[in-house]
Amino acid sequence: MNGEVSPERPATSIIRRIAKELKETKARGGKIVVVAGPAVIHTGAAPHLARMAELGYVDALLSGNALAVHDIEYALYGTSLGVELEEGGSKKEPRNHISAINEVIKAGSMKALVDAGRVKSGIFYQLTVRGIPYALAGSIRDDGPIPEVIKDSGKAQVRYRELVKDADFVLMLASTLHSIAVGNMLPSTVKVVCVDINPAVVTKLSDRGTSQAVGIVSDVGAFVPLLIVELEKLG
Amino acid sequence: MNGEVSPERPATSIIRRIAKELKETKARGGKIVVVAGPAVIHTGAAPHLARMAELGYVDALLSGNALAVHDIEYALYGTSLGVELEEGGSKKEPRNHISAINEVIKAGSMKALVDAGRVKSGIFYQLTVRGIPYALAGSIRDDGPIPEVIKDSGKAQVRYRELVKDADFVLMLASTLHSIAVGNMLPSTVKVVCVDINPAVVTKLSDRGTSQAVGIVSDVGAFVPLLIVELEKLG
Amino acid sequence: MNGEVSPERPATSIIRRIAKELKETKARGGKIVVVAGPAVIHTGAAPHLARMAELGYVDALLSGNALAVHDIEYALYGTSLGVELEEGGSKKEPRNHISAINEVIKAGSMKALVDAGRVKSGIFYQLTVRGIPYALAGSIRDDGPIPEVIKDSGKAQVRYRELVKDADFVLMLASTLHSIAVGNMLPSTVKVVCVDINPAVVTKLSDRGTSQAVGIVSDVGAFVPLLIVELEKLG
Amino acid sequence: MNGEVSPERPATSIIRRIAKELKETKARGGKIVVVAGPAVIHTGAAPHLARMAELGYVDALLSGNALAVHDIEYALYGTSLGVELEEGGSKKEPRNHISAINEVIKAGSMKALVDAGRVKSGIFYQLTVRGIPYALAGSIRDDGPIPEVIKDSGKAQVRYRELVKDADFVLMLASTLHSIAVGNMLPSTVKVVCVDINPAVVTKLSDRGTSQAVGIVSDVGAFVPLLIVELEKLG
Repeated sequence: MNGEVSPERPATSIIRRIAKELKETKARGGKIVVVAGPAVIHTGAAPHLARMAELGYVDALLSGNALAVHDIEYALYGTSLGVELEEGGSKKEPRNHISAINEVIKAGSMKALVDAGRVKSGIFYQLTVRGIPYALAGSIRDDGPIPEVIKDSGKAQVRYRELVKDADFVLMLASTLHSIAVGNMLPSTVKVVCVDINPAVVTKLSDRGTSQAVGIVSDVGAFVPLLIVELEKLG
Repeated sequence: MNGEVSPERPATSIIRRIAKELKETKARGGKIVVVAGPAVIHTGAAPHLARMAELGYVDALLSGNALAVHDIEYALYGTSLGVELEEGGSKKEPRNHISAINEVIKAGSMKALVDAGRVKSGIFYQLTVRGIPYALAGSIRDDGPIPEVIKDSGKAQVRYRELVKDADFVLMLASTLHSIAVGNMLPSTVKVVCVDINPAVVTKLSDRGTSQAVGIVSDVGAFVPLLIVELEKLG
Repeated sequence: MNGEVSPERPATSIIRRIAKELKETKARGGKIVVVAGPAVIHTGAAPHLARMAELGYVDALLSGNALAVHDIEYALYGTSLGVELEEGGSKKEPRNHISAINEVIKAGSMKALVDAGRVKSGIFYQLTVRGIPYALAGSIRDDGPIPEVIKDSGKAQVRYRELVKDADFVLMLASTLHSIAVGNMLPSTVKVVCVDINPAVVTKLSDRGTSQAVGIVSDVGAFVPLLIVELEKLG
Repeated sequence: MNGEVSPERPATSIIRRIAKELKETKARGGKIVVVAGPAVIHTGAAPHLARMAELGYVDALLSGNALAVHDIEYALYGTSLGVELEEGGSKKEPRNHISAINEVIKAGSMKALVDAGRVKSGIFYQLTVRGIPYALAGSIRDDGPIPEVIKDSGKAQVRYRELVKDADFVLMLASTLHSIAVGNMLPSTVKVVCVDINPAVVTKLSDRGTSQAVGIVSDVGAFVPLLIVELEKLG
């Protein structure tokens, strides 16, 4: 991570640089892999990550059950863990979380919900309609989980490895568990950008000696929207 | 802080709400006070805070020596503690920090540098040309300090109190020291928004029982630029 | 967590209180469950957690692959991820980590290594010789994993639930993933103490409304040794 | 800080090493300077820091108003900011904080309270009866302050410099403000150990290039008691 783990770095110019590198990677046909934790949803960054996929900057997504469940909950009900995101977190509908899980289980998959016109927005909507592959690794803390989740950790690792193969740029967003897993799978030549609000997570990832890695201590809820602003400026 | 201290909150909708409240406060002639730490500069948020002043959303600024020195260094040389912010933190000119201090001391004040046409941008440029009052409290860790700094802590408290008097909205940006000082001076009826990347700081401020306070665990380097985007949308 | 999530709490008196409650729980035949992350090893707390088991204060342990691998590595070679713990982290033998995994796989289980007299100390040595049950949940970031790990997340949840059933006191040590999983399985009447150096983790666990929970922002590397000092004082 | 900024380090062996170095420094007549923030009190470490002075391991103390006020409050009433430390933080007497300040102001100094037999324990009791010098730097957030506080930041820096002159070992405990100030005053040959629960503070201090510095992400409330255990073992 080249020692760039301090929160005291110029976020806007770093974001501009990352946007430029993403555009260059895309322009030369490179592969962009995003690793994302559920904080992407809670912090309100989901519509922006969905937009990133829409703009063609996501070639594969690696995550777990929680991101998918929260994304579907948000697409169906406008809430995340029952909290209304648009209203700044005031109203609560705690049952929406379980309902979202049940809807996916009933339909059989998130794809089935998209095909049936039930889910019309969000990260997994964009991935589905664009045929962008994703892998959801199971974990001990999963609610549900939804059918797409790979419950066997060995099989999940195999699928993760398939999707990160030939990656040129990996963007890790607020996910300690999945980011460390992916970090272990990458050759040191792959460009990695890791964004997390916890400096200890960023330091831990940097300790692994991935020489092409940049660690950024920031809030994905503000970082991802700004990244989209820059990507859209680049056209 | 109403328990809103988790990083897992929708940043963009909270920022939208804050922008709206700032606009309403301004519209009815209310007083907006900003408390800011040096991380505002290091994270690249300075041009955005300067823009906030330009847009009329800053009626007083409370800070210390470091913010001013870094702001002048950036205005004179484009660096912060010798690091080139625009280039994403690669080049280094460690002497710029001391040079900036010496330039202010030689000129007699930041105002003199602005009047002489030496400083043409930045937070203190905007405050100076608009006649917006500010107070810089001295501290044991000051380099310099520059002449505007009030070295006596008792006198600094008096000046701080004068400037927060009749405040309607206080925005605290990444400054534990000054934010706690100001928090102690405010009646509980004043609207307070505190943004810091360290959840412990936000929790500490919330423990003080300021009932109108909202704590946001975020990165000011991404938060302030997004706030300006929203303020400009509101016109 | 009753608002007790600030780092600014008197650690020694809280630890004394917890020691007293653990002793009372044990005295009346209550069940004590420990949830532990790999930081327990890295921070040097492993011999102290092993001692806690030896003293009869652990009735079940819930964790993952990393804790077990690091514990066996430490028992076999005196290192954790190749770093010599006793020397304060100076020398490095990066291959020890993989060797430890291979030794367990070759032997068939940690129990086999203990039975063969190869592993003579550590957390899992104490659990094995005392017949204390444990469950290791698989995860996407596992190296190995060793045979005892339950790779299917659904089956791991079933086993976790069996072990936390009838728990009277749950001590969570530096493990976000497993602690949140266990928190979701517990009725709100169970006494929970959660220790983590990251205030956001402690806040997140407290948001779940477990009314008997106490959150402590501390370093398990210093917290657990002090807890053992207090437990030994109580006799 | 030699990269030793991760929380994942073996606390007990590091503490043992520090205890050994403190003893060696003392044995050869070296000067030990402690820099301490108010968290030393809130976390319950005060009696242990007082004991460290009693054992002869403190040759000078650098801090601010808050540490002294909280220490006197604890000596007079057994509370810190009105919270009873011994009871684990349950009862509250918010007026004790102001009363402690008033008692010192009335007496004229902490020394006068000690001489009058009013204050019989605590950090400043030990410093006073042993004639160990200390400097308290004023700051914008001071309540009171008490008479010993040096309100002028320039004069406080002069006094700090006098006390750190010829220091051989500097122990920084949970005080960002004073630690950064002292870090700026030290030649890079002085041994520095910095303990803070916030990894960003430890990283920031390490960025300053003090080559003899060791950064430890830990909880002073558990760290200092363990350090005393080790110092007492060494005799």
